[in-house]
Amino acid sequence: MIAQSGGPSAVINQSLVGVVEGLRGSASITKTLGARHGVRGMLENSIIDLSDVDQATLDRVAATPSAALGSTRDKPDHEYCEKVLEVFKKLDVRYLFYIGGNDSSDTCRIVHELAVEAGYPLHAFHVPKTIDNDLVHNDHTPGYASAARYVAMAFMGDSLDNRALPGIKLDVVMGRHAGFLTGAAGMLREREEDGPHLILMPERAFVFDEVLGEVDRVYTKLGRCHIAVSEGVQDRDGTPVAALLTDVQERDAHGNIRLSGSGALGDTLAQFISRKLTPEGGKAPRTRADTLGYAQRYWPDASPVDQREAREVGRFAASQALSGIESGSITIQRTAGPGSPSPVLDYAVDLHRVELSDVAAKTRHMPDEFISADGRGVTPAFCDWLRPMLGDMPRAGWL
Amino acid sequence: MIAQSGGPSAVINQSLVGVVEGLRGSASITKTLGARHGVRGMLENSIIDLSDVDQATLDRVAATPSAALGSTRDKPDHEYCEKVLEVFKKLDVRYLFYIGGNDSSDTCRIVHELAVEAGYPLHAFHVPKTIDNDLVHNDHTPGYASAARYVAMAFMGDSLDNRALPGIKLDVVMGRHAGFLTGAAGMLREREEDGPHLILMPERAFVFDEVLGEVDRVYTKLGRCHIAVSEGVQDRDGTPVAALLTDVQERDAHGNIRLSGSGALGDTLAQFISRKLTPEGGKAPRTRADTLGYAQRYWPDASPVDQREAREVGRFAASQALSGIESGSITIQRTAGPGSPSPVLDYAVDLHRVELSDVAAKTRHMPDEFISADGRGVTPAFCDWLRPMLGDMPRAGWL
Repeated sequence: MIAQSGGPSAVINQSLVGVVEGLRGSASITKTLGARHGVRGMLENSIIDLSDVDQATLDRVAATPSAALGSTRDKPDHEYCEKVLEVFKKLDVRYLFYIGGNDSSDTCRIVHELAVEAGYPLHAFHVPKTIDNDLVHNDHTPGYASAARYVAMAFMGDSLDNRALPGIKLDVVMGRHAGFLTGAAGMLREREEDGPHLILMPERAFVFDEVLGEVDRVYTKLGRCHIAVSEGVQDRDGTPVAALLTDVQERDAHGNIRLSGSGALGDTLAQFISRKLTPEGGKAPRTRADTLGYAQRYWPDASPVDQREAREVGRFAASQALSGIESGSITIQRTAGPGSPSPVLDYAVDLHRVELSDVAAKTRHMPDEFISADGRGVTPAFCDWLRPMLGDMPRAGWL
Repeated sequence: MIAQSGGPSAVINQSLVGVVEGLRGSASITKTLGARHGVRGMLENSIIDLSDVDQATLDRVAATPSAALGSTRDKPDHEYCEKVLEVFKKLDVRYLFYIGGNDSSDTCRIVHELAVEAGYPLHAFHVPKTIDNDLVHNDHTPGYASAARYVAMAFMGDSLDNRALPGIKLDVVMGRHAGFLTGAAGMLREREEDGPHLILMPERAFVFDEVLGEVDRVYTKLGRCHIAVSEGVQDRDGTPVAALLTDVQERDAHGNIRLSGSGALGDTLAQFISRKLTPEGGKAPRTRADTLGYAQRYWPDASPVDQREAREVGRFAASQALSGIESGSITIQRTAGPGSPSPVLDYAVDLHRVELSDVAAKTRHMPDEFISADGRGVTPAFCDWLRPMLGDMPRAGWL
């Protein structure tokens, strides 16, 4: 049984196809099933047979963004997972591959523990996926590099736009807890004057006066200021800025306020900055906000590196399960390049298995060495780390 | 004197470089100047010398999105244009190439008329640019195809996202008066169930009850509804929906309310639809909005067709001026393909010159044959017209 969960990515189908390919030809596997909309499809018997899908279709699906089986925001508790296990018993499901973020690894963990308790032989594997890159024990996660590629290109383009028609421009980036994706905004900066001039990540407290002061300083100097702000920025007390400034208080199944699918944070922050920086009796600075939105996770021009890795992660999960290992989460670890014990010029990664409980419901943050000392930018170490994952990137020219 | 004006595009620098290339080697041209930020740079003496910029730099600039010389939102009146003419006299400027939309062609026209009145010999050419594609006498304008490529890819990706996590999803597209860009949202639909399910353009009245009825019908049938809505949609009286629903009433120099650089229209429309479609005592449908934003005009992956055409348009303007013609606006007209008197399989266009007054301050709209009978979609004729301009496009796969 294979399923997909959480916010889709541009390469989540590569992992799906990787699992299908990895299981093919094994005598242990009599049938490969796909549940529509994750665990929900298991309970609602919305299940399709993937055993005989031809390779051409698989290849085309792999290259298609967003979850081809459908996804879900359901976060199953023990009772829900017991129902999942009942379905598995009924259908004689002996292998589970759940592709998703840390909530999905937790689901995997619960189902597996229930199976162990019940004495039901089940191999349960979590296949990582998250554009936020917030899974522990991973150098990076499938989906992140493609989203980072989108963000880097967006900020390159918008920095040039902001140079052509100067003003204050805010772009809101996804990532509730981790700043990896927002950090990618600074990837294609080449010159001191290039935007984004501020990169505001959830790992550093958002102090209104400090941010205003810095925006004012850049705007006074350059006549413009381009700001990357994570949707997840918080004040010193850990209160989301989105909650402080806006009326948007819709909460998801996890009790988190909804941050995406709305321009509220960007708009309100832009109005706030514009009002505060308008001189008394003077003209308000031209201030605009864009919320990069779902394009970050669906953009149909994925990083080729990300595509290959996502496929391999799926295949590796299948091979681990077929080798007899009972459960685990697959992780990508870097073996070469910056941060490696023996750095070489080539970028190389290895796949490993860790315990489900090592990953489940934990959150990884940007390490300190990736965040500049003033807390409003990224370091060269971050760019060195990110660069090889992105594929070919455009370069700007200036007059 | 070359300058750029209005909202930038992904290929506006191709036209700039095309003009520079077209002027090179001519005995009539002693110096090629570029004004920073359009007419404003002419008045503020912010002018650079482009005569000796090397070809490698030109090629790199050409491939870079957004106006490399800087742009402006200034819309000069007669007095402003008289100052421009004074600058031209002082600097001995005999050729003006102004790259922009219909406001820019109007500026070109006024400056040229003042020169004629003053007996000052000036060649004045408008080089077309607009992602809205709303210039008359053009089959399409440089900048449009790249923006349409972005929009088509965005809707392909978001339709797949909406299929994976169903709900009502609104995406707001640029285009104040013309629906060409919003229409591109329907370009990559392959199957009946694919989104966007509604494409709402400014050429058809936005009738709240009709839109709600149609969203309800699609949502009831598919469990989701993906909507493309132009920022310029208006009700039957011609009042912008943005003005009816939102508090955003900031106006630009032209007296138009500001539509871009804010998520207000999408957010308010999404809230309105969600509220209206929530059954009494029942659960609100999952409703999200994204405003595609400035990425439509700056995305650094332009259509290759658009890039070539934008360059040629610049070169052609230069050659027309050097051949002795006094003024004009360059237009792209189609010589082959759908809508041509002798349609052939190959896409081909020709460049022509029309009078400045033919283009200045006029607006082209989507022709009726491009809009479906119900007014909420595009026709196959529109897709046939758009397809050859986009370059290679991704294709989705499904399970």
